[in-house]
Amino acid sequence: MSVSETVEVAGHLIDSGVLGPILDDIREYGGDYVIDKFEVGRGAHAHSRATITVTTDDDEALQRLLMRLQTRGVNQVDPGEAAVATAELDGVFPDGFYSTTNLPTKVRLASRWYDVVNPEMDCGLVVETENEVPVRIVTLPMSDVRAGMSVVTGASGIRVQVPQAARDDETFGFMESDVSSEKPQAVLVRQVAEGMREARAAGKKVLWVGGPGVVHTGAAPAMVAMVRAGFVDVLFAGNALATHDIEAALYGTSLGVDLSMGRGVEHGHEHHIRALNTIRKEGSIRAAVENGVLEGGIMHALVVNDKRFVLVGSVRDDGPLPDVHTDVIEGQRAMRAELEDVGFCLMVATMLHSVATGNILPASIPLVCVDINPATVTKLSDRGSSQARGIVTDVGLFLEQLAVELVPEYRRA
Amino acid sequence: MSVSETVEVAGHLIDSGVLGPILDDIREYGGDYVIDKFEVGRGAHAHSRATITVTTDDDEALQRLLMRLQTRGVNQVDPGEAAVATAELDGVFPDGFYSTTNLPTKVRLASRWYDVVNPEMDCGLVVETENEVPVRIVTLPMSDVRAGMSVVTGASGIRVQVPQAARDDETFGFMESDVSSEKPQAVLVRQVAEGMREARAAGKKVLWVGGPGVVHTGAAPAMVAMVRAGFVDVLFAGNALATHDIEAALYGTSLGVDLSMGRGVEHGHEHHIRALNTIRKEGSIRAAVENGVLEGGIMHALVVNDKRFVLVGSVRDDGPLPDVHTDVIEGQRAMRAELEDVGFCLMVATMLHSVATGNILPASIPLVCVDINPATVTKLSDRGSSQARGIVTDVGLFLEQLAVELVPEYRRA
Amino acid sequence: MSVSETVEVAGHLIDSGVLGPILDDIREYGGDYVIDKFEVGRGAHAHSRATITVTTDDDEALQRLLMRLQTRGVNQVDPGEAAVATAELDGVFPDGFYSTTNLPTKVRLASRWYDVVNPEMDCGLVVETENEVPVRIVTLPMSDVRAGMSVVTGASGIRVQVPQAARDDETFGFMESDVSSEKPQAVLVRQVAEGMREARAAGKKVLWVGGPGVVHTGAAPAMVAMVRAGFVDVLFAGNALATHDIEAALYGTSLGVDLSMGRGVEHGHEHHIRALNTIRKEGSIRAAVENGVLEGGIMHALVVNDKRFVLVGSVRDDGPLPDVHTDVIEGQRAMRAELEDVGFCLMVATMLHSVATGNILPASIPLVCVDINPATVTKLSDRGSSQARGIVTDVGLFLEQLAVELVPEYRRA
Amino acid sequence: MSVSETVEVAGHLIDSGVLGPILDDIREYGGDYVIDKFEVGRGAHAHSRATITVTTDDDEALQRLLMRLQTRGVNQVDPGEAAVATAELDGVFPDGFYSTTNLPTKVRLASRWYDVVNPEMDCGLVVETENEVPVRIVTLPMSDVRAGMSVVTGASGIRVQVPQAARDDETFGFMESDVSSEKPQAVLVRQVAEGMREARAAGKKVLWVGGPGVVHTGAAPAMVAMVRAGFVDVLFAGNALATHDIEAALYGTSLGVDLSMGRGVEHGHEHHIRALNTIRKEGSIRAAVENGVLEGGIMHALVVNDKRFVLVGSVRDDGPLPDVHTDVIEGQRAMRAELEDVGFCLMVATMLHSVATGNILPASIPLVCVDINPATVTKLSDRGSSQARGIVTDVGLFLEQLAVELVPEYRRA
Repeated sequence: MSVSETVEVAGHLIDSGVLGPILDDIREYGGDYVIDKFEVGRGAHAHSRATITVTTDDDEALQRLLMRLQTRGVNQVDPGEAAVATAELDGVFPDGFYSTTNLPTKVRLASRWYDVVNPEMDCGLVVETENEVPVRIVTLPMSDVRAGMSVVTGASGIRVQVPQAARDDETFGFMESDVSSEKPQAVLVRQVAEGMREARAAGKKVLWVGGPGVVHTGAAPAMVAMVRAGFVDVLFAGNALATHDIEAALYGTSLGVDLSMGRGVEHGHEHHIRALNTIRKEGSIRAAVENGVLEGGIMHALVVNDKRFVLVGSVRDDGPLPDVHTDVIEGQRAMRAELEDVGFCLMVATMLHSVATGNILPASIPLVCVDINPATVTKLSDRGSSQARGIVTDVGLFLEQLAVELVPEYRRA
Repeated sequence: MSVSETVEVAGHLIDSGVLGPILDDIREYGGDYVIDKFEVGRGAHAHSRATITVTTDDDEALQRLLMRLQTRGVNQVDPGEAAVATAELDGVFPDGFYSTTNLPTKVRLASRWYDVVNPEMDCGLVVETENEVPVRIVTLPMSDVRAGMSVVTGASGIRVQVPQAARDDETFGFMESDVSSEKPQAVLVRQVAEGMREARAAGKKVLWVGGPGVVHTGAAPAMVAMVRAGFVDVLFAGNALATHDIEAALYGTSLGVDLSMGRGVEHGHEHHIRALNTIRKEGSIRAAVENGVLEGGIMHALVVNDKRFVLVGSVRDDGPLPDVHTDVIEGQRAMRAELEDVGFCLMVATMLHSVATGNILPASIPLVCVDINPATVTKLSDRGSSQARGIVTDVGLFLEQLAVELVPEYRRA
Repeated sequence: MSVSETVEVAGHLIDSGVLGPILDDIREYGGDYVIDKFEVGRGAHAHSRATITVTTDDDEALQRLLMRLQTRGVNQVDPGEAAVATAELDGVFPDGFYSTTNLPTKVRLASRWYDVVNPEMDCGLVVETENEVPVRIVTLPMSDVRAGMSVVTGASGIRVQVPQAARDDETFGFMESDVSSEKPQAVLVRQVAEGMREARAAGKKVLWVGGPGVVHTGAAPAMVAMVRAGFVDVLFAGNALATHDIEAALYGTSLGVDLSMGRGVEHGHEHHIRALNTIRKEGSIRAAVENGVLEGGIMHALVVNDKRFVLVGSVRDDGPLPDVHTDVIEGQRAMRAELEDVGFCLMVATMLHSVATGNILPASIPLVCVDINPATVTKLSDRGSSQARGIVTDVGLFLEQLAVELVPEYRRA
Repeated sequence: MSVSETVEVAGHLIDSGVLGPILDDIREYGGDYVIDKFEVGRGAHAHSRATITVTTDDDEALQRLLMRLQTRGVNQVDPGEAAVATAELDGVFPDGFYSTTNLPTKVRLASRWYDVVNPEMDCGLVVETENEVPVRIVTLPMSDVRAGMSVVTGASGIRVQVPQAARDDETFGFMESDVSSEKPQAVLVRQVAEGMREARAAGKKVLWVGGPGVVHTGAAPAMVAMVRAGFVDVLFAGNALATHDIEAALYGTSLGVDLSMGRGVEHGHEHHIRALNTIRKEGSIRAAVENGVLEGGIMHALVVNDKRFVLVGSVRDDGPLPDVHTDVIEGQRAMRAELEDVGFCLMVATMLHSVATGNILPASIPLVCVDINPATVTKLSDRGSSQARGIVTDVGLFLEQLAVELVPEYRRA
């Protein structure tokens, strides 16, 4: 006995090629479909709208397929009301829980639509009530759910909205026709600078996510200049970026970068381990700055300019620095706590922290990923950060150019 | 006022090209040198010996240079006695602490040489005493030192020994003249198989370190066969390998591998998040197996064959699985606890966990790293795991061939 | 004053995502469009059909856009008759010449449709006449056109046909749902084997395109076995593959493959240059085989089994071998002369020769490209060989497995 | 019956690690050795000298080993006189011909030492005589030897000299201690600029070798500025760079660069083929410039500034442009004819032409290779261009920075 549901999707369906993946999903989940209606926008800027009836063998399969389709911006024509179940165990969602996207999401409960406060992918939706009346719906990661919480199940009563910005927005249109044929790299630098300026003008924060390559490629002075000029509000990184930066500041030595191969040489090196011990002795990076132990570099600049940073550890860490969250789930919580009011995100030279940040970032925040390795950029998009714009280039030269663009006095230095 | 020390190094100095890096280190640390004596082994299998006087501006620089040189197997001609200081803070070594290598190490205290029990790089040396007499010297990572412990400082009284195996050992000589010109890949597979068999014959354990690529490339059945046949005693991995393996076992679906690009497609996918929830509900992977929830795959095979695994989390994890160490420092401790009696280590398709394992593994344990990405292999050697042998190849085909070699009945399946 | 034309395209428009690139092309050429009609196939296997009116500023732009769109399988609804102009110079097409695709193509002249004999991309269409009546229409590369020839101009009177095989064909459906989740690599090997067997069963030839990596990865014995068993009818390669193969056969030495890095080490080596001199002295590879100078390897196997090979030189060649076409345009002609009756093409470990072959191969011939470097596979598709299936894997292990699959007695050797 | 020869090598033997490869060569050629004497330079800047007796089974093996060792700068202690044989066939060297290195080379004939006029690797040495007296010794590639020429055989009577510049030269010491830790990329740009200025000051030419990536990354305006300012005397390239440059100049369109992936998208595109036809109609690039057809871009700048270029074809070429040498051996000859007085060589974004140029360039000419792909840089060194300095970076940003450094007015543009 098969079950069906009618769904719809609208927007630049034809340009974006989104229909192919939608139909692939249906097949992958063992479903079948009929395209009931396809209204095609006739001209170059018109939207299209498709209505599709999907059929699966049973309701569980159907609910899961509907959730899957929502990651593509496909909603039920008649969404109905959301179903809710109670979590029975800490850290475990009820069976059939609704698995979230990072898109703007609405949930219908008791005939009212609620906006989800903090869209994040791969979470559950928890209904917060006062006097048994729903007042707020939030995403919650699996590890944070507690027994007794009300969790949305199934795909009914939920609508997501795909940002059309990527195609329509003229101010951040990488790879669009407004990219001059003459100096594409320079145009990209200018667009990233513009994105940051706009975020700042709108009172939003600029979030950086960085790997040790920022230090290895010699971009620390450029980044320091941008911290001072107010273009770095928050930094997410690991133990490596901070330690290499501090090591360079403490020992004034070259880090042994093998420039010919474009990669940092990691020596397993006593400079490194001694720098860690020095900061651990002070108790924190801030203490090391305040005690005059740490006098330069990126971390120093963040501290003296009262900017935020979240360092999260990994299994390969030495030390680590006292500021590093060694528990990765605690680290994710610390990162989430900094996301409010972020209006632009730049990811530089790190796959691990870029994917981690992509996991928790709403799709509505402009996101640019810069790496010399195309795989990092690809990985991020594969993970579902569809808003990500990738730039495959040399991190050191890129940040140098970005500093020249953003900080007029930097060039004269 | 400059200070000097005379050091020596012996072995296949000329073949191995180790002298260049030694002299580079001296320059990098601002030192100078005179080669006092250079006895060259005359024939093709003879060892050479160099005696070098190194000079720096002050004693601190000299001690640090001497520690650095020990990572190359360079010892003081007259090592003297080790100096010891007391740690004053938890998690902080005394100033001037001796930073360890992963080489077999001896320490001289009260005119006696002690073997270091567990060589590991980038740690300190802690002297354990009974009735104020030293009884044991152990490496301890920075995060585990406690106030009051006795820690070796400076480079005096310490000798390291470079394993000559890499060049002399005929049974594991990758890239040597016994590599047939005909089928190099097949020879490599056979050599890895032989290394595992030898470890087992010697009563040693075989350690695997794996990334999700093992599952993505379709090598799970091959690995399961090797688990059953006793060639996988311990697995170090992250949340991803275990979750993807369990997801495939629970949902029987293709993981959406983009075979044309040789990489796994990560959907940010509700299969993934639902598999995590299912195991979390059971409380552990073992419970899921015992309750009949998990009935196949690599993790299942490890459980039913009573093999060990250590899963350590990372900041990009969803879930994670209940067995995952979310604290990376705890995770490192759990990994260290499994190293005893390891006689062979195979690393497959993971840069993060390979480097993490390389960090804690003694240099005396044969180590092979297989990845389609040359950077993973290079990174491992750069970090100081000089014993690492790298094989750049397709992980799926390699494990398939390895299973055929190790498990005669696998081919017939 | 703008000009318009109505075009149509049919097939799996929605799955394939082909409409996005079509609309991108229109914008790139400065055109505008209206979608007049869009008939959507309702079910999972139905075809769709779109009718679009495109508009540009002048006729030249329109003709060029129409040619561009034909590379996507878009034809004019009312194609009319083809226009023809006479070439005035050797090696130069008339202005406005029709630039070909590699798709099956029909041309309408004097109210009759003619099939183009040999579809090839980026060529012109030459009308051959007898008694002033068209008898045949052939593609001709720019360098081969001669003054006085009749060449088709503009996009009128031409229809191309996009092969639907890629999506519909069940027997060669890489990346489709029939790819088992269990052993994807093994499935790929088996599908390539099946493609070769089918070509042979249909009386077609199997074309190989290879780079020196075939020799470096130790796959020469596997390839020799496949030559003997009749699965290599023609080989396209450069001087390098043949010379490295012959060098290995003559000197019985390892080629100094750096297996740890998965790449061949090229010594600039006197073995290499001496092997070249030896064959040059004999006058040809065949003569070297017949005189007993060359007694093994891939080239030897091709000669003794009377198989064909075309070697084309490049600017980096030493020697070259006497059989190498040093004029690349002559080399292209020699390659074209071997294409008749090719029914399957396997490209292994060469970007240069793969792209060169992709340039001249009709889109109707199944094409698989195997390389450890994803860029090679991507490049081929970017160039317009849309039928290409890519496999990113280790060439040595892949050919070993393919030989085991195709040549039962190979495994026993 | 074994034969022996005593050889010597001097220089920075210990820093450079050259002895390991020398001993590897001896083993690879089946020889044995005894190190007779090893005088080690004691201090940091002293040279060392080793005297080694090598033994092989027969004289042919010995001669070949001696030639091989000369590529490492190893000479016979007692070189004796060179032996000479007559070529019997066009394009074929006599058996046992001396295979050259790209190092400065001297040949001893009739008790006199002659300098080889034009060192080039993998060639033979031809003795030119007047009245039966040797007057000149030149390298000649295999394809250019003619019957009757006198060719040096065996390794006797030959000395090569390894340039010590790489280590001693302070002005071009990449990766040395004078590379500031602060801005390594900027330092590299400045060093390349300095190398070009020095070459020019010494009255030498600057040779560029480029791939189409120069155009794709938007660096054409930067390169044009450097052509005008006199920093590009000769360009070696293929059909692709010139065609893409001309296509951009003729059609003013973006080339469809996929900036997000850092690679050019090659459309198989009628722009491309039409640009080729346009220039072919003019007869040459120069004619197209003179007739006002081509009005901008790199090729235009070379023509109007009377700079030289050599374009050599490859098997994947469309067209090609009328200036392209379609015969690769002719192309090599044309390249050789431009090498005189070259004092600096910059290779950008091309593996094929970089290796081709490395093949014919004397080792004494400073050589820098810039590519985003580390494999290109590695390949060049593997081939024997030991003087090559590699920079793995973004080509577009690098050339932009180089133009800013070399052409003060460029920044203001």
